[in-house]
Amino acid sequence: MEKRHRVHFINSLSGYKSANLIGTIDQEGVTNLSIVSSVIHLGADPALIAFVNRPHSVPRNTLDNIYTAGCFTINHVGAAFVEDAHHTSARYAADISEFDQTELTAEYHSLIAPYVTQSNIKMGVEYRQRIDIELNGTVLVIGEIVEVIVDETLIETDGKLNLVKAKTVAASGLDEYHVGESLGRLAYAKPK
Amino acid sequence: MEKRHRVHFINSLSGYKSANLIGTIDQEGVTNLSIVSSVIHLGADPALIAFVNRPHSVPRNTLDNIYTAGCFTINHVGAAFVEDAHHTSARYAADISEFDQTELTAEYHSLIAPYVTQSNIKMGVEYRQRIDIELNGTVLVIGEIVEVIVDETLIETDGKLNLVKAKTVAASGLDEYHVGESLGRLAYAKPK
Repeated sequence: MEKRHRVHFINSLSGYKSANLIGTIDQEGVTNLSIVSSVIHLGADPALIAFVNRPHSVPRNTLDNIYTAGCFTINHVGAAFVEDAHHTSARYAADISEFDQTELTAEYHSLIAPYVTQSNIKMGVEYRQRIDIELNGTVLVIGEIVEVIVDETLIETDGKLNLVKAKTVAASGLDEYHVGESLGRLAYAKPK
Repeated sequence: MEKRHRVHFINSLSGYKSANLIGTIDQEGVTNLSIVSSVIHLGADPALIAFVNRPHSVPRNTLDNIYTAGCFTINHVGAAFVEDAHHTSARYAADISEFDQTELTAEYHSLIAPYVTQSNIKMGVEYRQRIDIELNGTVLVIGEIVEVIVDETLIETDGKLNLVKAKTVAASGLDEYHVGESLGRLAYAKPK
C-alpha cells in the first residue's frame, strides 16, 4: 500500500475520534494551540485524561510547554470553528501563537494555560505523567482535570454532558469532521 | 459531586469516543465479546492500535484471552446493532459467550479470534504490549493490525474509510451512541 494511502486507511480504522484543542503557554508567555484527535478518558476518580503525542503530529512546543508549565487546557472543537481548529495543525514556529493566526481567542481561569473562548466544553488539566511507548516512539501524556468551564444547560440531570447540544465534533482519519446525531441513551446492561 | 453523577460527567468530558467490540476466545474455545469505547489509533507504520482497560469496565476474561491467544479482533459498532453491542457490557461469567446472548454472530478469518459478522469494519490484531498505568490501575493494551475485513466500497480513493457510509457509531459518556454527519474533509493545513 502506498505510504499516504496507508496513513489515511490505518488512521481511520479505530473509528470516530475526539476532536480537541490543547492550549499551552511557554515561559515567555507565547501561547500555543494544537488540534489533537487522541484525547481519551482514563478514569473518573481521580479525574484522569490523556492524549497520545504521535511523532510530528503535535509540534514539540506543546509538549515542552506542558512539562514546563505543569498544566494545559483541553477544549472541545465545535462545529462553528472547525476550519480554525484544523488550521492549528499547520507547522508554525514556536514564537508564533495559533491564537494570532486564527479567529480563536484565549481566555484565562485558574490556570496559567489559555482556554479557547469559542469552545463550549473546556477543562483545565494538571500534568501528571508521561509514558513513552517504545514500539513507535509515541508518548502518552496523562493529566488530572482540575477545572471545567461549561454552561450548565449542557449538563443532563445525571451529570452527562450533551455533546450534540454542545455542537462538539468528532474526527475521523486525518482530516474529516462530524457532528453527531444521537441514537439515544441505553440502560445499564445486565445479564439476561 | 455525587459518585454516579461524577462518573457520567467526567466520562463525557473527553468528547466523542470510538465504539468497538473486542472479540476473543479462550483455551476451551469459549468466545467473548466486549464493547469498548477507548480504542485509539497509535500509529500507521507499524499499524498500531490500543485500548484502555479500565478496572471493572472490561471483564477480566477479555484480557486473559488476549494474553493467552496472543490476538484479538476489533469490530466497529454499527447503528443496526447498537443494543446488542451495548448488551455485551453485562457481566457474564467466563463460560458464557456474548455471541450466544445476542443476535451477533461470529466468523473467522486468519486469526483464532472471532470477528463480528454484522460489523462493516473489522480488523484482526496481534497483541504486542501491555502498559500498566499506576495512577489509577488501568492498562493500555497495544496490538498490531494484521488483517482488515472491509467492503471496498467503504474506502475512499485516497485510502480513508467512510465511517458515515459504514454506519459506524460514536459513543459519548457511558451509555449514549451517535451516528455521524460529515462536515467535510479539510485540506492539509499550512502556515498562512
